[in-house]
Amino acid sequence: MRFAHLLASRTRHMSRSAIREILKVASQPGIVSLAGGIPAPASFPLDLIEDLCQRVMRQYGDQAFQYGLTEGFMPLRQALAPHLAGRGIHTSGETILITSGSQGVLDAIGKILISPGETVALESPTYLGALQAFTPYQPRYAAIDCDDQGVKPEALERVLTENHVKFVYLVPTFQNPSGRTLPLERRQAIARLLRRHEALLIEDDPYSDLRYEGQALPPIKSLAPEHVVYIGTLSKVFAPGLRIGYCVAPEPIRNWLVLVKQGVDLHTSTFNQALAAAYLEGGHLERHLPRILSLYKPRKETMLAALERYLPSDFHWSRPEGGMFVWVEGPPGSDMAEIYRKAVNRKVAFVPGHFFFAQSEKGLQTMRLNFTMPDALEIDWAIRTLGEIMAENAVRPQVLSSGGRKGRQDAPRAGVEVF
Amino acid sequence: MRFAHLLASRTRHMSRSAIREILKVASQPGIVSLAGGIPAPASFPLDLIEDLCQRVMRQYGDQAFQYGLTEGFMPLRQALAPHLAGRGIHTSGETILITSGSQGVLDAIGKILISPGETVALESPTYLGALQAFTPYQPRYAAIDCDDQGVKPEALERVLTENHVKFVYLVPTFQNPSGRTLPLERRQAIARLLRRHEALLIEDDPYSDLRYEGQALPPIKSLAPEHVVYIGTLSKVFAPGLRIGYCVAPEPIRNWLVLVKQGVDLHTSTFNQALAAAYLEGGHLERHLPRILSLYKPRKETMLAALERYLPSDFHWSRPEGGMFVWVEGPPGSDMAEIYRKAVNRKVAFVPGHFFFAQSEKGLQTMRLNFTMPDALEIDWAIRTLGEIMAENAVRPQVLSSGGRKGRQDAPRAGVEVF
Repeated sequence: MRFAHLLASRTRHMSRSAIREILKVASQPGIVSLAGGIPAPASFPLDLIEDLCQRVMRQYGDQAFQYGLTEGFMPLRQALAPHLAGRGIHTSGETILITSGSQGVLDAIGKILISPGETVALESPTYLGALQAFTPYQPRYAAIDCDDQGVKPEALERVLTENHVKFVYLVPTFQNPSGRTLPLERRQAIARLLRRHEALLIEDDPYSDLRYEGQALPPIKSLAPEHVVYIGTLSKVFAPGLRIGYCVAPEPIRNWLVLVKQGVDLHTSTFNQALAAAYLEGGHLERHLPRILSLYKPRKETMLAALERYLPSDFHWSRPEGGMFVWVEGPPGSDMAEIYRKAVNRKVAFVPGHFFFAQSEKGLQTMRLNFTMPDALEIDWAIRTLGEIMAENAVRPQVLSSGGRKGRQDAPRAGVEVF
Repeated sequence: MRFAHLLASRTRHMSRSAIREILKVASQPGIVSLAGGIPAPASFPLDLIEDLCQRVMRQYGDQAFQYGLTEGFMPLRQALAPHLAGRGIHTSGETILITSGSQGVLDAIGKILISPGETVALESPTYLGALQAFTPYQPRYAAIDCDDQGVKPEALERVLTENHVKFVYLVPTFQNPSGRTLPLERRQAIARLLRRHEALLIEDDPYSDLRYEGQALPPIKSLAPEHVVYIGTLSKVFAPGLRIGYCVAPEPIRNWLVLVKQGVDLHTSTFNQALAAAYLEGGHLERHLPRILSLYKPRKETMLAALERYLPSDFHWSRPEGGMFVWVEGPPGSDMAEIYRKAVNRKVAFVPGHFFFAQSEKGLQTMRLNFTMPDALEIDWAIRTLGEIMAENAVRPQVLSSGGRKGRQDAPRAGVEVF
């Protein structure tokens, strides 16, 4: 039977993304990967899990395994409220919606807000998972100019003035992919712009708990509560495999999100929500988070030191105070796709930065490096290898389909594809 | 801030469904509910869960809490293969896609296949969760005529001939809401029609394991493998709160489903998939299923006996050999919405059948009764009460917003909304 003619018009706009192939290559045995956006397994509170399971069984019994409310498991929603208050977002459990990872919010936002051809304003570069969630709803993307501190408020104002923008999507803290963080003045300026233009911001904040130094900054949600859908996740501070995300949205938006979520997955796993509630209620996050930070901080420092030591002097990179990524920019004309091909042959993987731009011709000279998954020794070795490749300017590029990478198509599909 | 103008055109087609309100009422304390589509908590293998958790921790460690492949956790996919072979669907783990409940497949099918205005062919009545998943993609619905044995093949042929049908959606076994099961000859006839018309069937099969009597029937997937996306779930035979569904689809469709699922939730909870794998691998399903059947069979028999005893002689109902529902049809002109209002005042809830028809004027004389959640005593009492209400023909209807139901809007939103 033929199937292509059955596809919806929106599906014809989608394509199997090349980054999935990169992440599969990156997860092959023997590769040191700076490619994924994955927490270290050592960051999971495995020693707690059996206790949490027993506590959930005792406290909730069959309720933890039954169908649940689309809005989420109330004990988890209530346990998240003080956690969010610590970030300056003061709200009650009733207003918090639990989703299947923060990806679940992004999809639902796209579904309720984007008609084909309408404009979504984005950082450039931006989080690829957001593009993946929004693109099936066929938006037009307007890129907002950024510098080393993230979105420039005057650029956002221009985009809001020149376009009928449905919503703005930003990752203000330790952005994926750039590692950049918006300073306080810019957050305040953006909050003013949202109010002045009656605009809606989707503020994606998966990384702010992963701060290794410096002062915490208020989320934009706390500066313009009525204009922001705030998205969080427990994937980076508990366990990503449990798929627990959440959002705090203005009431009308929240009601639509609930209606749409019911059609997508009815609700997020009750048992996993109950485990997360037990994790938060028991004060485990506060006790465990310092262990995560002390695992990642030296990895970040090792990466920054290695970049300093091994990369040519005409390369620049972000110096994030937290998160999971460092963003590297080569001199004009450098081609990170070429560097990538050579790196993989030498058993190092990363993600060429052009994948993170909505406009395909941008970012050819950039790369995203993850420092949470590899350990310090691997990071030092991988960056040294990248430095050697960058120094070998005269070497002709070797394409993926030749030589040692021939077997790639048949390799086991063991890779985890998280951007 | 105003939000209505931000909604996508597809969202304006959606509305908060009245059935959600019914299910909330049904879950109020003191109400005997025949309304939900919910397994009895006593059907969950709670005595196994701690063991399964420990086994998963031992066997997979951090892997059970890490991000996973969008396609699903391979041990679960492999454990499902022999389970499906038992139903006549012979496939390997590689071809099985794990989803967040079967709802997750329905949403993804809608997303990849339905362009606005395109035709989806459905039973009438049909599963409401499917309408909820498909409707945001703005299809046109073509209702296929049914009788007591489900879809009439000649009616399906007419719909396929007269329309450009994107896909057909059926629940062939113990259908929700009607409890009807397609006999073998019709399954074979439908398989022939799918081949002749090069048509795609979405076969939703959540209930076939819940057979209390009679002979198992082959899924249509086994009769026309290339033309069917087969959807299953562990919600009825393990635990719905874990949100584990799956599908077996022709390869091109499967590839699109994976791409779309990645944008929706990245993947289904790894831990829950590992628990489900341990449940299947350990042979627990085979051992536990008879306990579920022996819990539900007397409830079904009690309901059928009570209907016989208490309902007026001009009422008819389905006599399912399994599943969770009995479908009742009153004489022409009867109005189950009116009966519902009176029933709630007497502390009995059910779902008026018109909710399950895509065309709003249909099914006013029908009702769906669930027999898995209430126990035998409750079932007998509830049906007797319904019989009394039906006999009181002269009593004027009392509307929900008056009298004793006044407090409804402020009642706690504790209800689980599963159709």
